Amino acid sequence: MNFTLNILGTASALPMVNRYPSAQVLDVRGRLFLIDCGEGVQMQIRRQRLSILKLDTVFISHLHGDHVFGIFGLLSTMSMLGRTAPLHIYAPEAFRKALSDFMASFGDGFKFEPVHHAVSADAPVKIFETRSLDVTAFPLNHRIETYGYLFREKTPMKNVRKDAISQFGLSLAEIGTLKRGEDVVREDGTVILNTEAAYQPYEPRSFAYCSDTAPFPELSEWVKGVDLLYHEATFPCGYETLAQATFHSTTRQAAECALQSGARKLAVGHYSSRFPDASFFLDEIKEIFPEAILCHDGMVIDIPLKKFE
Amino acid sequence: MNFTLNILGTASALPMVNRYPSAQVLDVRGRLFLIDCGEGVQMQIRRQRLSILKLDTVFISHLHGDHVFGIFGLLSTMSMLGRTAPLHIYAPEAFRKALSDFMASFGDGFKFEPVHHAVSADAPVKIFETRSLDVTAFPLNHRIETYGYLFREKTPMKNVRKDAISQFGLSLAEIGTLKRGEDVVREDGTVILNTEAAYQPYEPRSFAYCSDTAPFPELSEWVKGVDLLYHEATFPCGYETLAQATFHSTTRQAAECALQSGARKLAVGHYSSRFPDASFFLDEIKEIFPEAILCHDGMVIDIPLKKFE
Repeated sequence: MNFTLNILGTASALPMVNRYPSAQVLDVRGRLFLIDCGEGVQMQIRRQRLSILKLDTVFISHLHGDHVFGIFGLLSTMSMLGRTAPLHIYAPEAFRKALSDFMASFGDGFKFEPVHHAVSADAPVKIFETRSLDVTAFPLNHRIETYGYLFREKTPMKNVRKDAISQFGLSLAEIGTLKRGEDVVREDGTVILNTEAAYQPYEPRSFAYCSDTAPFPELSEWVKGVDLLYHEATFPCGYETLAQATFHSTTRQAAECALQSGARKLAVGHYSSRFPDASFFLDEIKEIFPEAILCHDGMVIDIPLKKFE
Repeated sequence: MNFTLNILGTASALPMVNRYPSAQVLDVRGRLFLIDCGEGVQMQIRRQRLSILKLDTVFISHLHGDHVFGIFGLLSTMSMLGRTAPLHIYAPEAFRKALSDFMASFGDGFKFEPVHHAVSADAPVKIFETRSLDVTAFPLNHRIETYGYLFREKTPMKNVRKDAISQFGLSLAEIGTLKRGEDVVREDGTVILNTEAAYQPYEPRSFAYCSDTAPFPELSEWVKGVDLLYHEATFPCGYETLAQATFHSTTRQAAECALQSGARKLAVGHYSSRFPDASFFLDEIKEIFPEAILCHDGMVIDIPLKKFE
């Protein structure tokens, strides 16, 4: 029951030897979702010992090169490795031309279809789901059309308490009713409240990806209560003017978003190449939001399952 | 007076953690020529402690992704770093569309112009020169239009022997004549032979890049006597059928080309991902051509200047 974030790149526009461009893989119970796709992502995926062929669905925030140039090599490699299943790629409309241009020049002999789904939203909108997961896109505040993505496990079926089965003499149909979260109403008028006989087996987990963005008021609402918030922190304090001009955030602004959203944990990255050592970013963030992590390439952040019994 | 080859990538189609796709930088007296441009080349250039802004001219062999996908990030980074001088890129005609597509999607705000020069040749043809260097393109035998490149220092001006100046009482004009390699013919009919009074100060150095290619008879003629021959060796002995089907070469075929060409040294790379450890390739090559090197990412091969006095 993994819910694990793999950080593949923490650079901003200019990569460095130890900071690749933006890319992350969220492993939700073994399904691998690739979020952004900076140059070199296929090598970083291998370095992280993840399987390229197991990549499930791709989510691209925006069409700046440092978030997307890795898709070309990745798609080619997938084809050479024998992928046949379509690969679904959620990305802004601008990706359509980039993808079709790529396929025209390099797609000869491709064994699978990369399928682009244009993301378009001015408020959170569900764009994708699996049996256990919803993915919501929401707009960010960057120089070009940019989206954040919220991955949230679905509320699970209720578990029925073992003692309740004997206590109430529950039938199979009644157990089903309780699992669906409903109360049992018997023919004789007896009511077995769901809260009396059932419980939620675990807390659904959630992760929000917010890169690249300048701060804006709605964002903390849109990612409210998330377990893990990834928020870019391109610049440290004192660089507010530059951050504003480039539609990026500072450490403090990332921390304030985390604080206002009530996120459990904040992870930051996308560091400006002006700061080869960004370790001091953490102090600035922790002054506002102590549960913070400075990402580095290759970092693994696990969100453990919180079970109820 | 550098003539130094930097190996940035030795993978073939499928890169690995320690093998990036094809890219090399030839440093000729401080001018940096980029040969092929696999994904991640901008990170590999930094890793090699070469300067992205000092890259001079780019030569691309063919439009397979593992030789070209790094150009997009590289061009973007050059622009962000403030390059204003046009960048000249020699590549097959198919590169034109890839470049213009790229510029349409990602070229907004570019501060310099990437200029494509279409390479087209069915025999060696000079495509580029500097004061001290000629670059010749020649066709290779691959699945799509592919060129090799031969970098050869120009024959230098002759040096005039100091003792000859006093011995013959040479005038400045006569010294100029001898430097140009001509004999001096005086008004009184005296002839001072160039070989008597002048000598070539050093031997012009040369490097040939041959990837990707199946063997073909003309190749060894076209790279005859080269100081350093880079020849792909995608497969070891025993894989001739696969090599032929994919228009690649085996170790033995690379070695035979080196032998027939009279190259001084052979460097091989572009190893198939079937062979994570390709060290045994070297034994196979050395049986035929002992002066051989197995390239690895980050390797530097220097061709020292051979001076005459």
